[in-house]
Amino acid sequence: MNDKAANEFTAGHIWRTDGWHADVHLLVDEQGCLRDGPSRRGEPLLPWVLPGMPNLHSHAFQRAMAGLTERRGKADDNFWSWRETMYAFAAAIGPDELKAIAGQLYVEMLKAGYTRVCEFHYLHHQPDGTPYDRPEAMSLALIEAAREAGIGLTLLPVLYISGGFDGRPLNPRQRRFGHDVAGYLRLLEELRRHESDDLRVGMALHSLRAVPVPAMREVLANDLAKDRPIHIHIAEQLGEVQDCLAIRGARPVEWLLDNAEVDARWCLVHATHLTADETVRLARSGAVAGLCPTTEANLGDGLFRLADFLDAKGVLGIGSDSHISVSPVEELRWLEYGQRLTTRHRNVAARGAAESVGETLWRMARHGGAQASGLPLGDLCAGARADLIVLDPHSPLLAARDSRSVLDSFLFAGNTPLVRDVMCGGRWVVRDFHHRDEAAIAARYRQVVERLAGNRE
Amino acid sequence: MNDKAANEFTAGHIWRTDGWHADVHLLVDEQGCLRDGPSRRGEPLLPWVLPGMPNLHSHAFQRAMAGLTERRGKADDNFWSWRETMYAFAAAIGPDELKAIAGQLYVEMLKAGYTRVCEFHYLHHQPDGTPYDRPEAMSLALIEAAREAGIGLTLLPVLYISGGFDGRPLNPRQRRFGHDVAGYLRLLEELRRHESDDLRVGMALHSLRAVPVPAMREVLANDLAKDRPIHIHIAEQLGEVQDCLAIRGARPVEWLLDNAEVDARWCLVHATHLTADETVRLARSGAVAGLCPTTEANLGDGLFRLADFLDAKGVLGIGSDSHISVSPVEELRWLEYGQRLTTRHRNVAARGAAESVGETLWRMARHGGAQASGLPLGDLCAGARADLIVLDPHSPLLAARDSRSVLDSFLFAGNTPLVRDVMCGGRWVVRDFHHRDEAAIAARYRQVVERLAGNRE
Repeated sequence: MNDKAANEFTAGHIWRTDGWHADVHLLVDEQGCLRDGPSRRGEPLLPWVLPGMPNLHSHAFQRAMAGLTERRGKADDNFWSWRETMYAFAAAIGPDELKAIAGQLYVEMLKAGYTRVCEFHYLHHQPDGTPYDRPEAMSLALIEAAREAGIGLTLLPVLYISGGFDGRPLNPRQRRFGHDVAGYLRLLEELRRHESDDLRVGMALHSLRAVPVPAMREVLANDLAKDRPIHIHIAEQLGEVQDCLAIRGARPVEWLLDNAEVDARWCLVHATHLTADETVRLARSGAVAGLCPTTEANLGDGLFRLADFLDAKGVLGIGSDSHISVSPVEELRWLEYGQRLTTRHRNVAARGAAESVGETLWRMARHGGAQASGLPLGDLCAGARADLIVLDPHSPLLAARDSRSVLDSFLFAGNTPLVRDVMCGGRWVVRDFHHRDEAAIAARYRQVVERLAGNRE
Repeated sequence: MNDKAANEFTAGHIWRTDGWHADVHLLVDEQGCLRDGPSRRGEPLLPWVLPGMPNLHSHAFQRAMAGLTERRGKADDNFWSWRETMYAFAAAIGPDELKAIAGQLYVEMLKAGYTRVCEFHYLHHQPDGTPYDRPEAMSLALIEAAREAGIGLTLLPVLYISGGFDGRPLNPRQRRFGHDVAGYLRLLEELRRHESDDLRVGMALHSLRAVPVPAMREVLANDLAKDRPIHIHIAEQLGEVQDCLAIRGARPVEWLLDNAEVDARWCLVHATHLTADETVRLARSGAVAGLCPTTEANLGDGLFRLADFLDAKGVLGIGSDSHISVSPVEELRWLEYGQRLTTRHRNVAARGAAESVGETLWRMARHGGAQASGLPLGDLCAGARADLIVLDPHSPLLAARDSRSVLDSFLFAGNTPLVRDVMCGGRWVVRDFHHRDEAAIAARYRQVVERLAGNRE
């Protein structure tokens, strides 16, 4: 399509909460929002238009270590041994490295169909724990990477105080993550000044073990916690559940629901190890369950109680987390498949008769992802931010697929990329499978990771 | 690379059973086999060369229904309800449709890194059960599709006699699958005449429930069962295990091991539901466990006992089966991930210290796949058939990856295609991500599936 036509288009089919709508004419206004457009001949037709997917959980720097830990180490290779490797890798990442890695990652996210990312960001200081001259330097690197790539960003600076439920201090490799409450609130205030249509700044508690109770109460009582997303890692590992039970006398999700006003601002990331009661209480709280199926599989975390949570009308979204994979297709496909493998039934996520699993998953994850990102939850209608993706009508994977089957084929059939074009905030950032700046961003990334690899040798 | 240079190349790194070898100079002779080549300047350098992966289990026609069954039907949506949909779909497939669908599928397989496919082929007759004028017409459609696409084929015509362990006759939708023993052996003899470097003809029993015991004994005693692969579906579903126990007094794998000379000719497809004892006995038999992780997930079958089987030194390979996915990466990645999710440990497939999971999985699946295909098991050395793939060195996913990490990154990191070139039987069939005939084959496929969809409406 040419540039003139780019901001005025006809969707052959556009997908909204109630299903597909045919022949919809839309404009993009100067604020990057959709408006109803006039029907005209000769406009480019975008055959299958979907809302972009928010990616609700990202540690951008981990993208560069994808594939470096798939090797047998100790006999008890698990989440905790992986974490040691990750800490060593993180020690070499400064603002330039972070910007280069995040830029490459965000290009990959856009090309895969993500139009927003929530950065759960804890690499705040220099490797020895000293703040940078500008204490927000690492946050600014992420903001700049997102701006260059053209992806929407919800930045979640992370509060990280202690190394365990017993309140032990951070170990040397964790020191660069740390803040006291006052320093953390100053960082949030500084970053809030950068907010825009493309950037929201929420907050995050690393985990219950990393935030002592008085500190948690203090930040949650602050005005900065109002009307913005609050994310937390929770119940990812059984060891964490056991420690929480031993020291706080309750399981992590149970304890949080009892001790904080958990509501729709919240996103509980992973929430893997839940009792039936916690599952229902989490669903009723209105918080988002932030599921990261490929990372949870890679790290051997376990499977979420999906059917119980959906029966209780829980809200969920997806994140690529460690970026071992970067694809909403793989996250949603294997969210469903993990359930099929363990229940021995098919089409677990669908609730009603004749409901498409693909549509159900895309609708739920897009809704929960928007909520966790602090975005409006609306459809691709007049007034909505123009964050959308266009599927490739020429792919054999979609041959002879109609509106009844196209989303199921997108999510379940095959492995070749189907996202042809991506518009983010009203700008076309991917066209015909290519990001507007992918070569330069990839070259910078390559330079940085080759230097990092050289230093490791 | 130009055509002249195409049959003489330098591999920057080539992967063999004992690991990576640098700067290897190779020629391809007129029989499509490798020979040692002289070291020369100016030849094209192929940076990362791997042996192609055999795909040990395929029902080609099912490719065209991928994505059409991911929709909630009855409350008890499971393997058996899926099978009803599949039967209805199969009823519309004749030789022309099968050739068009298989051709498209085989192009996708090659582009994903498969260089061989085992067709477990049971759509023998016309939909009402009448043989075609040439009884082998459907088999010939598969042979022709493989030839056009340029993929190696191991054709496994399937013996299918009864509709259950009780010996009930085939139902109307199964009639086109059926043969008596004499007719089946005639089909095998006829097809053997077509064997070539690119085509092997083995045999397959659909399942224990579909082949009465006397028929099984008769075909296995025939000379045609010597020196060729013998495949069987087994223990995919708990219902099958229960029926076998009830009628034959033993579990399916247990019964087969007790009642047939199961050895390295055999491939037991799925083998999902095993006891610890069956797992060890299967491993010791030398037969291949034919695992199809994406189909087994899609159908809700269950997880294979991988760790126990590998501890007992079992041989395994992978198949894309229903073709809901077509990618050795997704099969191997999720074979490993299924284990991590249930054991809560990482790097389950690796046995030794410091062993790469990616290398372990590729080596095992390539070895077991070759065995199940009736191919030699050797490395990419002089004398071997030139079935190889070349990874894209320009992908950011492989930036700063060395021979220690490239296979782990290929199998575990990211979602973009990394197979740049594919040589099959000494011919380059994929170059720079494009198959030599992909447009024409896709156009024919599209025409056929659109006609099939029109007929369904």
